[in-house]
Amino acid sequence: MASPKQVFIAIIGAGGVGKCFLSQLEALATRRPSPKLNLIYISTSKKALYDAKYTPTPFASAIEELSRASQAPPALPQLAEYLAAAPAKVVLVDNTSSQDVADAYPVFLGKGISIVTPNKKAFSGSYKLWQDIFSAASTSGAKVYHESSVGAGLPVISTLKDLVDTGDRVTKIEGVFSGTMSFLFNSFAPTSGAGGKWSAEVAKAKELGYTEPDPRDDLNGLDVARKLTILARLAGLPVESPTSFPVQSLIPKELESCSSGDEFLQKLPGFDSQMEETKAAAEKQGKVVRFVGSIDVASKQVKVGLEQFDASHPIAALKGSDNIISFYTERYGSNPLIVQGAGAGGDVTAMGVTADLIKVLGQIA
Amino acid sequence: MASPKQVFIAIIGAGGVGKCFLSQLEALATRRPSPKLNLIYISTSKKALYDAKYTPTPFASAIEELSRASQAPPALPQLAEYLAAAPAKVVLVDNTSSQDVADAYPVFLGKGISIVTPNKKAFSGSYKLWQDIFSAASTSGAKVYHESSVGAGLPVISTLKDLVDTGDRVTKIEGVFSGTMSFLFNSFAPTSGAGGKWSAEVAKAKELGYTEPDPRDDLNGLDVARKLTILARLAGLPVESPTSFPVQSLIPKELESCSSGDEFLQKLPGFDSQMEETKAAAEKQGKVVRFVGSIDVASKQVKVGLEQFDASHPIAALKGSDNIISFYTERYGSNPLIVQGAGAGGDVTAMGVTADLIKVLGQIA
Repeated sequence: MASPKQVFIAIIGAGGVGKCFLSQLEALATRRPSPKLNLIYISTSKKALYDAKYTPTPFASAIEELSRASQAPPALPQLAEYLAAAPAKVVLVDNTSSQDVADAYPVFLGKGISIVTPNKKAFSGSYKLWQDIFSAASTSGAKVYHESSVGAGLPVISTLKDLVDTGDRVTKIEGVFSGTMSFLFNSFAPTSGAGGKWSAEVAKAKELGYTEPDPRDDLNGLDVARKLTILARLAGLPVESPTSFPVQSLIPKELESCSSGDEFLQKLPGFDSQMEETKAAAEKQGKVVRFVGSIDVASKQVKVGLEQFDASHPIAALKGSDNIISFYTERYGSNPLIVQGAGAGGDVTAMGVTADLIKVLGQIA
Repeated sequence: MASPKQVFIAIIGAGGVGKCFLSQLEALATRRPSPKLNLIYISTSKKALYDAKYTPTPFASAIEELSRASQAPPALPQLAEYLAAAPAKVVLVDNTSSQDVADAYPVFLGKGISIVTPNKKAFSGSYKLWQDIFSAASTSGAKVYHESSVGAGLPVISTLKDLVDTGDRVTKIEGVFSGTMSFLFNSFAPTSGAGGKWSAEVAKAKELGYTEPDPRDDLNGLDVARKLTILARLAGLPVESPTSFPVQSLIPKELESCSSGDEFLQKLPGFDSQMEETKAAAEKQGKVVRFVGSIDVASKQVKVGLEQFDASHPIAALKGSDNIISFYTERYGSNPLIVQGAGAGGDVTAMGVTADLIKVLGQIA
């Protein structure tokens, strides 16, 4: 028998974000006894922990029990059947960055399974997938929240939704949407002048763990393009895909074919003069160069790439690996609504997921 | 018979915010047919529009019909009875700044009537009222949302709640919480140097409509103290009242007894030297002076008053009448999560109320 005060949690993904999320979930369940949260499914790409009776696994020991599990995860359609047959409402938490899982969201949502996730792929893939996701949710009443798909735990998606839902007209969104790019340019072209060589800053960022294993996965701009796609769609623009608008790649053409990130890093110093010129050109105007994304809603223009800013501009004054997102709207006039802070990292990403889960619980439990 | 897809709206207050809210509500009802929103009560302090049959009034004509109404508003306990007997769930929107209405929240909430409001008084009054409000809501399941009680439509309350609810530890909150104070100090002590005389800036702010009718109601710091009280309580500090911590008033002692705001403005130039000294002292350190509020959660210290900031500090670089709120937390580390933008004005205040209403509808309808 379903109890109204019990909600089942299913988690796909147990990496950095997944572990932080589990720890936040454990604390949440301790602080808030109602609704009772039962972890009835958790999987990596290799293994899954679940049984036919929906036996809950304690949050605290889930990672360890999963590591000892011997089952492979079921195919996604089977997982959807399994969760849909559960004797309580289910929230699926997708802590992966998998396109396959994202593609299956309409199936889960169509069966009444709510989803919370930091996975950008579902919302920045084809526009058809976007439409399928929200129409499945709307038909079944299942909820789908993805705050951490842009700016991690920063209130970006929720703020944009509030602006749109209350009838404000968003005219422009602009910002630094990548922690890696933020760190690179704050070090390479600080407002105080100086700054290191471009290739040295990239190598340093990689050493500090601020880049993907292959830094080209940050430098190609696709991560920022995905985030812009999500925000543009929420603002009402039917952007077809993250490759349907201009995205400037910072990978020199000659290095696109390097067989590894290491080879790329080794050869990058040979191209420092290009970035040095870009920086000097900005300095000549009394400005600094930054890697930004912008959405001009009226002219329907979305773009990602290098731009110049006065040293006093909030985008130029950013620190460390912080993100900054400025919402220009009719109501807010010439001074935008600005959200700023760490936009990457396991804990803050998981925070966005946990906050989303709390919102979903408030609506379904 | 109660219909699950119908929610009754009752509004107290039809001033600047109330009018903006009604216009947003009308647009919302048009965009979202479900749940159907019926305006069954609206009142000013003098008049009320309602009847025993809960006949809905169209949002578009509510202000006009209210102006022609001949009924006086019922006493608050009678209003609570009337709303509690309604054949649908009710959300009460308090668009006043009335302490009397605020004091009655526990009665409304106890009867299952949800509340959304920009009214600071309920959440910054006595700590007992705060406790009564949330315990009444918790017992009945009614919702209470008050985003616009701090920073108008800026995501301040929701962000702080998300931080706390997901288990982050807030260590410090700091910011400029008054649009009036922001405007005054950005003009009086701009980072570019110069700036006008203090009394002239106050007179200009009043002319532009940035101050209360009597500017002393801004300069006494109480408005900021109320907002700090709300945030401190949400962060876990049981602050007794907005007068239970140090609040610096910018009203010269000699002018506290002026019988009117006009008399105050007339005599203020005689005290310009005090503020000029404060400004010069900051400049000597290469800094600017700003009127800020801060909450140090660990040491449980809340204070409001003048402080000095480097020109490069985000608080110093603020523009116009913008607010800025920085959340320092364990997860966010040394770089705070920052929210910035217009923190006053009818439209953006109403936006916070409307966004809150949408959240409540998602939970009760």
